[in-house]
Amino acid sequence: MPQGKPEVVPDDGLTTRQRRARPLLIVHTGEMKGKSTAAFGLALRAWNQGWPVGVFQFVKSAKWKVGEEAALLALDEVHRSTGQGGPVEWHKMGAGWSWARKQGDEVDHATAAVEGWREIGRRLGEQRHRLYVLDEFTYPLNWGWVDVAEVVETLAHRPGNQHVVITGRNAPAALVEAADLVTEMTKVKHPMDAGAKGQKGIEW
Amino acid sequence: MPQGKPEVVPDDGLTTRQRRARPLLIVHTGEMKGKSTAAFGLALRAWNQGWPVGVFQFVKSAKWKVGEEAALLALDEVHRSTGQGGPVEWHKMGAGWSWARKQGDEVDHATAAVEGWREIGRRLGEQRHRLYVLDEFTYPLNWGWVDVAEVVETLAHRPGNQHVVITGRNAPAALVEAADLVTEMTKVKHPMDAGAKGQKGIEW
Repeated sequence: MPQGKPEVVPDDGLTTRQRRARPLLIVHTGEMKGKSTAAFGLALRAWNQGWPVGVFQFVKSAKWKVGEEAALLALDEVHRSTGQGGPVEWHKMGAGWSWARKQGDEVDHATAAVEGWREIGRRLGEQRHRLYVLDEFTYPLNWGWVDVAEVVETLAHRPGNQHVVITGRNAPAALVEAADLVTEMTKVKHPMDAGAKGQKGIEW
Repeated sequence: MPQGKPEVVPDDGLTTRQRRARPLLIVHTGEMKGKSTAAFGLALRAWNQGWPVGVFQFVKSAKWKVGEEAALLALDEVHRSTGQGGPVEWHKMGAGWSWARKQGDEVDHATAAVEGWREIGRRLGEQRHRLYVLDEFTYPLNWGWVDVAEVVETLAHRPGNQHVVITGRNAPAALVEAADLVTEMTKVKHPMDAGAKGQKGIEW
């Protein structure tokens, strides 16, 4: 695929170099599962650039993304032992976040989602990562657990050059409006329509 | 995301276990770049299952996928040194394929595409990989370099449990027809529309 040429040269007073380095807010939405998968593919590129990557999984799922988690944490280990690539952190909401409380403490999911978002806000302020994957983050937004307007506001004022990818169905309109790049994964055909079940290596 | 329940229980005489292990032909098409990225995300899951992964890039591109290549080859190295995950091979068409000829030999792209497809056919026959990523393979199909009917025929009769992911715009109808799962990546919004250029870590 040839490298795309911009269709319009913007009158924004920025040099090409500045425009290239623009921090992006990316949304992967639509009904198909490629949303998260493509976000983790982006994480591979970020890793190769040596960027610190932070993955935050907002919906509890026992096995769906173990493959990506294991692979990205193996890349983190490569970084630690050889210096190749960048560091990767992977945080799951589950029953509370790893940084937030001791194992076994109970917390409801709405509270945990808010805590997750607060931590991400702190990290954005500290410029802790260069790529953030907020996986399935549209769900707590749509359920009203986390305030969309606050998220858009925080992202709009994040410092430095931090890229943020948000995945999940039914991305809220205000988020789509704020995003630089929005891709919708659309189903053309899916084996579950024909009665097949998910299988390891493909679905998780 | 909860695990999907099949909408229909098929009357195909297969057990759930057999149906789960069905080899899949997956097509990622549409105008957005998530097509390849999501395929490489699938490769992470395959790697974690210990599956031998083969990536075949059919369109020459100097820098677009260096990140994914470096990361997946780092995972191959993890496999070699620790036994975690599976082996990964990454082949680029470029001016001929790595297995086919000495560097510097000239070959036209149409011939190289046919040679690539022949090699993949041989590997399918030998069950060399468990996941094949045929990246940008729709282009040589659409350009008439590789015969779609032959590809569909070969894939239909591939032995064992080998999954194949084909990416690229404008997937031919016969390929969509033959596929088990087809996802279209649709553009909702893209920064190049606003005049931004591609940037490292995001576009390559």
